[in-house]
Amino acid sequence: MVEERITRSSPLRSTLADLPGLPGCITPPRPAPPLAYITSTPPPEPTGNTISVNGFIRSVRKQKKHAFASIGDGSTLSPLQALLSPEQAEGLSTGIAVNIQGRHVACPPGKEQASELHALAVEILGDNDATNYPIQKKYQTTEFLRTLPHLRTRLPFNSLLLRLRSQVIAQLTTFFASRDFVQTHPPIITSNDCEGAGEVFTVTSSAGQAAPSDPDGEEAQQHFFRNPKYLTVSSQLHLEALAQSVGKVWTLSPTFRADRSHTPRHLSEFYMLEAELAFTSDVDSLMDVVEDMLKDLARGLVSSRTGKELLQARSSDWIQNEELGVLSAADLQARWDGLLASEWPRMKYTIAIAKLKEAVEIDGASFDVAPIFSSGLHAQHEHYLAKTFGNGGPVFVTDYPQELKAFYMPPSAEQEAVADGPTVACFDLLVPDVCELVGGSVREHRTSELLKAMEKHEQLNDVVRDGKGKDAVEDASLQWYVDLRRYGSVPHGGFGLGFDRLLLYLSGVTNIREVVTFPRWPGRCDC
Amino acid sequence: MVEERITRSSPLRSTLADLPGLPGCITPPRPAPPLAYITSTPPPEPTGNTISVNGFIRSVRKQKKHAFASIGDGSTLSPLQALLSPEQAEGLSTGIAVNIQGRHVACPPGKEQASELHALAVEILGDNDATNYPIQKKYQTTEFLRTLPHLRTRLPFNSLLLRLRSQVIAQLTTFFASRDFVQTHPPIITSNDCEGAGEVFTVTSSAGQAAPSDPDGEEAQQHFFRNPKYLTVSSQLHLEALAQSVGKVWTLSPTFRADRSHTPRHLSEFYMLEAELAFTSDVDSLMDVVEDMLKDLARGLVSSRTGKELLQARSSDWIQNEELGVLSAADLQARWDGLLASEWPRMKYTIAIAKLKEAVEIDGASFDVAPIFSSGLHAQHEHYLAKTFGNGGPVFVTDYPQELKAFYMPPSAEQEAVADGPTVACFDLLVPDVCELVGGSVREHRTSELLKAMEKHEQLNDVVRDGKGKDAVEDASLQWYVDLRRYGSVPHGGFGLGFDRLLLYLSGVTNIREVVTFPRWPGRCDC
Repeated sequence: MVEERITRSSPLRSTLADLPGLPGCITPPRPAPPLAYITSTPPPEPTGNTISVNGFIRSVRKQKKHAFASIGDGSTLSPLQALLSPEQAEGLSTGIAVNIQGRHVACPPGKEQASELHALAVEILGDNDATNYPIQKKYQTTEFLRTLPHLRTRLPFNSLLLRLRSQVIAQLTTFFASRDFVQTHPPIITSNDCEGAGEVFTVTSSAGQAAPSDPDGEEAQQHFFRNPKYLTVSSQLHLEALAQSVGKVWTLSPTFRADRSHTPRHLSEFYMLEAELAFTSDVDSLMDVVEDMLKDLARGLVSSRTGKELLQARSSDWIQNEELGVLSAADLQARWDGLLASEWPRMKYTIAIAKLKEAVEIDGASFDVAPIFSSGLHAQHEHYLAKTFGNGGPVFVTDYPQELKAFYMPPSAEQEAVADGPTVACFDLLVPDVCELVGGSVREHRTSELLKAMEKHEQLNDVVRDGKGKDAVEDASLQWYVDLRRYGSVPHGGFGLGFDRLLLYLSGVTNIREVVTFPRWPGRCDC
Repeated sequence: MVEERITRSSPLRSTLADLPGLPGCITPPRPAPPLAYITSTPPPEPTGNTISVNGFIRSVRKQKKHAFASIGDGSTLSPLQALLSPEQAEGLSTGIAVNIQGRHVACPPGKEQASELHALAVEILGDNDATNYPIQKKYQTTEFLRTLPHLRTRLPFNSLLLRLRSQVIAQLTTFFASRDFVQTHPPIITSNDCEGAGEVFTVTSSAGQAAPSDPDGEEAQQHFFRNPKYLTVSSQLHLEALAQSVGKVWTLSPTFRADRSHTPRHLSEFYMLEAELAFTSDVDSLMDVVEDMLKDLARGLVSSRTGKELLQARSSDWIQNEELGVLSAADLQARWDGLLASEWPRMKYTIAIAKLKEAVEIDGASFDVAPIFSSGLHAQHEHYLAKTFGNGGPVFVTDYPQELKAFYMPPSAEQEAVADGPTVACFDLLVPDVCELVGGSVREHRTSELLKAMEKHEQLNDVVRDGKGKDAVEDASLQWYVDLRRYGSVPHGGFGLGFDRLLLYLSGVTNIREVVTFPRWPGRCDC
């Protein structure tokens, strides 16, 4: 139904900002503001002035004399309730986009909403095939909604997750700028696989396609970039080069792993926040940055509308995605409180293993995998450490065994006389449920030590790219990384944070496939 | 040379911030601040207090009684001059990283620098193989420096370009946040090639490698994602979905084109700034956002230290990269002034063609390609329009011929009765030298019209992905895009801006391979 007297070319418009002094104001060229300004709590004083809103019908209830429509536009969790005449409500159903001009009035105390919109005119802005519309008011599983990544973000909670991502990006940008970090764009297509962190994706082009049957010779000329290239698994090595140029750098970049992993914490494509600091030689100062950064984010979240809505969503009956709300509002608040706790414990790996053994032997705790120095920490161990020693908040574990970590990590500052083996100057940040959130280390900055470590690393690994074995150390693909040590090297270190995993933790969602709009995992790459 | 009395574990430290009240202060645990705080103009009052700086030797001049070292750390274009004893200068050469403790003192008027550092202790932080160090004080071509992407960012001007990128990203983040745009992360690995904008890169994995000899059947199971996937050539389609969820969205994402293009304005991997606005049906409001955004950036740049240094770099004899400074300081200032000019001309395509024809016929201008309605605007035309009608600043050209543009662009609001053919509601932003900087349009939001356009588009194009011809319209890969119209579609539009090209324009550099740290183009993907 289109109200003839209102045309899109000269819409009747007014914004909340204009309300106080200008009764019934008409301000033609300004677009309708987001509903967030109208439905915010406490609401601005609705003076009954004429306003214009754009949004989608979340639900509509038609009675004899009136119709009630819930309008949402993704800017707020709460809908705006509109009171319509039966004629105005004609043709309206869930999912339809509308423009409504009306009087914004306060509701009497006791009503669910503080204000509502008494429609003067309703315009349908686009058609909706209501019969086939896959998003229904009834409960739909998150698994089903994942088949509709292009539509599910219209659900109030999914819109909220989009806004959370945006808010966290903006806050990180401000945080790092205030600390003289330079934000950079390291490359996505690269020549190396960093730390052998996982399977890589290969990049080819029909404009210079590799001939898989021809492993050398002509193949080189058929590659778009002369030789095979991959999607980056980490920007760390490139950031090390940039840190030597401008001191402190960071990036928030897409990262790729072709592992056949189907856990709720892994994706094939994800965003990594990575930072690298020159003139830094101890893990403590790296952990300080991580702790300050996450506390800054938590403070911002707690005091923001987004934070309030994340709590509100867990007690709202209009939130359909029940699986998103497994964590109660109190539990989520406790998570944020854990981030804000005055000081996060920092514990050496050897101590962590000892504590885990104690837990088994004295407290009768049971783990699927026994805690052993050479086996590393498994998810159960990490969860236990965060729960027990972090008081439900984060715990840093430092100085892991050398043989479990990447080649570029130097020996720990204080080598303990442990028979188990040498440790390296690194740390992981563990949180309950999500487990490893951040990993970082000092980087070996001495040329000879780095070359030794690279050689040893290749020997330790059975699988070496392209079957080149030890020669890979001499491979030109990492020669540039060695150059960074040859020429004016300085002590430096950095860390990487799984950004989507952080959003998982901050939002209390249980599966990473919900916090990423178009998630990719083995066998699935919709849209 | 390492001063024995200074150890890294308890360094003598002081920061400029501590200077005023605390003579000779020693504040152990704080890191040395960036040199920018010390060499900034006007400099803070150097009171002769002890400070600690970290940096690299840019040059060192050794005399009998004294040595002078220029120290840089990438935070500032100007070096800090340090006065050393011959003993302190022992072992120092270009490229070496040092920590210097010393007294920061004002220089007498007339000296080149306002202040200098009288060293008390010098510590070498890492070795440098000076003999083989490829970055030399003498002039080196940009072409040569491109072979050293991991080292060239240490040059003062290249560091400045890194800081420019960081500053512009931060400012964009603030700009869009202040206008209620939600920053998003659309996917990098996608199923479609958007508008057929260029050749795509294909993504494969040895964990599920395609067998090119087997075009169907078993192939499907061998793909990591079930069927072939590509690197994104534009996030627009995905942003359209998100705009319908939260109103206004933007992203700054890596984008890929496998074209065999070798121009100074094209790369195989580049960053695109894309925005999409729901509830928007005219190109003017889209152009308003573009104009406001770029003016905001220009204002920020002009008033920033980065802006001042971009001008300063053009008259500084310590800037080696001569080719970077082709544009004079006055020319660069004129560019920024052009961006800040009160109103940018908006000109219809038909008018632009008429003006170009006039230029040929009346003013005797000569173009390699004649201006004809059906041929589009070539770089020479775009440059002429920007120079002539934009007064050296930007010009919007709107309403291009339908047959030259992508399928999703709807007819122009006012179809002129031109015999030449129909036009669409779109715009390009043209600037001198760099030519097309932004492209945008309203998007066809009516299902039936979109389907018609998709069919027509496929017919017009000889080359259709996978040889599927017309059937590609029905291809499931774009079914989700059609869904956006079926279900609650609204008028919307958006734009895309080549981010690296913008940095090219703002910095006055002539080749895009200099503003991107690790540039990728056909045959080249170093590091």
